Amino acid sequence: MKKYTVAILGATGAVGREMIKVLEERDFPIKELVPLASARSAGTTIKFAGKDVTVKEVTPNSFDGIDIVLGASPNSIAKEYAPYIVKAGAVFVDNSSAFRMDDNVPLVVPEINPDDVKLNKGIISNPNCSTIITLVALNAINKISPIKSIVASTYQATSGAGAGGPLELEQNVDDIKEGKEVTPKVFPYQIAYNVIPQIGSFLDDGYTTEEMKMQNEGRKIMHLPNLKVSCTCVRVPVVRSHSISVSVICEDALNVEEVKAAIAKEAGCRLYDDPANKIYPMPLVTSDQDLVFVGRIRKDLITDGAICLWCCGDQVRKGAATNAIQIAELLTK
Amino acid sequence: MKKYTVAILGATGAVGREMIKVLEERDFPIKELVPLASARSAGTTIKFAGKDVTVKEVTPNSFDGIDIVLGASPNSIAKEYAPYIVKAGAVFVDNSSAFRMDDNVPLVVPEINPDDVKLNKGIISNPNCSTIITLVALNAINKISPIKSIVASTYQATSGAGAGGPLELEQNVDDIKEGKEVTPKVFPYQIAYNVIPQIGSFLDDGYTTEEMKMQNEGRKIMHLPNLKVSCTCVRVPVVRSHSISVSVICEDALNVEEVKAAIAKEAGCRLYDDPANKIYPMPLVTSDQDLVFVGRIRKDLITDGAICLWCCGDQVRKGAATNAIQIAELLTK
Repeated sequence: MKKYTVAILGATGAVGREMIKVLEERDFPIKELVPLASARSAGTTIKFAGKDVTVKEVTPNSFDGIDIVLGASPNSIAKEYAPYIVKAGAVFVDNSSAFRMDDNVPLVVPEINPDDVKLNKGIISNPNCSTIITLVALNAINKISPIKSIVASTYQATSGAGAGGPLELEQNVDDIKEGKEVTPKVFPYQIAYNVIPQIGSFLDDGYTTEEMKMQNEGRKIMHLPNLKVSCTCVRVPVVRSHSISVSVICEDALNVEEVKAAIAKEAGCRLYDDPANKIYPMPLVTSDQDLVFVGRIRKDLITDGAICLWCCGDQVRKGAATNAIQIAELLTK
Repeated sequence: MKKYTVAILGATGAVGREMIKVLEERDFPIKELVPLASARSAGTTIKFAGKDVTVKEVTPNSFDGIDIVLGASPNSIAKEYAPYIVKAGAVFVDNSSAFRMDDNVPLVVPEINPDDVKLNKGIISNPNCSTIITLVALNAINKISPIKSIVASTYQATSGAGAGGPLELEQNVDDIKEGKEVTPKVFPYQIAYNVIPQIGSFLDDGYTTEEMKMQNEGRKIMHLPNLKVSCTCVRVPVVRSHSISVSVICEDALNVEEVKAAIAKEAGCRLYDDPANKIYPMPLVTSDQDLVFVGRIRKDLITDGAICLWCCGDQVRKGAATNAIQIAELLTK
């Protein structure tokens, strides 16, 4: 069995560290792991397969002999190093949003459009975290009848802002407890005991960059060029699972029972829908695992044949690290 | 000027205490305040207008000589004492849901349907808190063109579960900090660092009682018998302001600028919508005051002429106590 030399670009961040954990858990066929980071983090060590591996400073020459680069760095770093990665003949599976809407770059959720991986010219993008979680939940529905529109309101965890997000939430809580002034740095305002209807920056039409990702990326991933999404993205004081309230309209009328049956069988999903026994998705039950939990499935009361549901998934894992490694696994097949 | 003898049924709960505060703040013309509660709380004292007032045990004979009873008790208590209140000739302004859908009981948001107060036969109901906040935000829109449908996802504060809600949130946070097991009592699960997509109990169609209130009560308050609402109600770890993500479709197409201008002029609302300067409603800025803040006003991307917005208001005040006292003020006119 072929083994691969895998580099992690941004190995010391929240997603980078989770990628290393997921590679190990899933027994990815690794010849050598090369953790890369900025000069600031270089020299630190990371545990992988029982050994200490030293983090190296990323340079344009870091990619010789690498098969796959898993990107867990901001857009600017992804853009800076992508040309060197491609030139070195590696495939760049990038978690940043830098290349997601590039026509030459496949944008892949392995449960939905695995074959798009084959179209890569050296770069494959990992989609936005809320988009991945929502689309995995809706994939079974889209197979019954093509989705026309989605209304989504998100409840996004602090982990979506990187490792500093959950730390800032904890610091907020401590500061409030001690009567100290709260000084937000990662988030625009205090996130403890608050919800913030801003993720990303605002566009001229009043939507945020984050809110437009579900429509733009959703169209590309699901091959639905006319998909319409009205999205409201909200940060909530949760550690790491994102939740999304969804109303979905398809070409054809759906019924609740067929939707439940389809979701129960769908890869990547767990039907978690037994309200009488208080069984519904929550961050409390979906963190630190890879499935998207789907529940609260019911008729939309506005449009005949439309469906409302509630889904929840771990943002750091299926929303980022696990999805990237599933893409890398497709490359090994 | 006539002065009124006002009883508070459930004077020691979160809403009851806020009612007393709001009566004082708004300089309600009070002759005598009669705080009533269960035997357990009777005998304690409450500050009102600089004096200590003793809480009395509620009995069927508590209402002789009372002009207005402000109800801040559960449905069962409201149902038990309503006949005695009406028989004594007082008007019962009830915050419970016991009588809200009764054809003989007006359901009133003073900014929306003040004249309905005149139809009372001794009982007037105060609507559900999320419903009040959402409808105040949408009132200006409904005046431009009648609302046909609303998709709403709520972010409801712990105060909606009574005084024990915020206390349980705080206890959860402390228990987690100290590594203790979290034991939920007020909420079905741990609420700290979690969101719970259940408020109220589940109906056969998968909606909760809380979720159906926005449609059922909305129809009655807005005199829109065909209004359709698809609502998802979610508890979030916030202390006392509720937030709601709304998509609204009217008979006619709306544009964002006319909606903003109308909301800016509307009673009970504050247009709080300047995203470029990070101005949008949040629990952090809307607690402990009476206005519903409305922001994130933008075109819905699915339906031409539909509008998305985000509103936020203090659940204990405009969502409960203040609205009840505004109803009582209408009775004095």
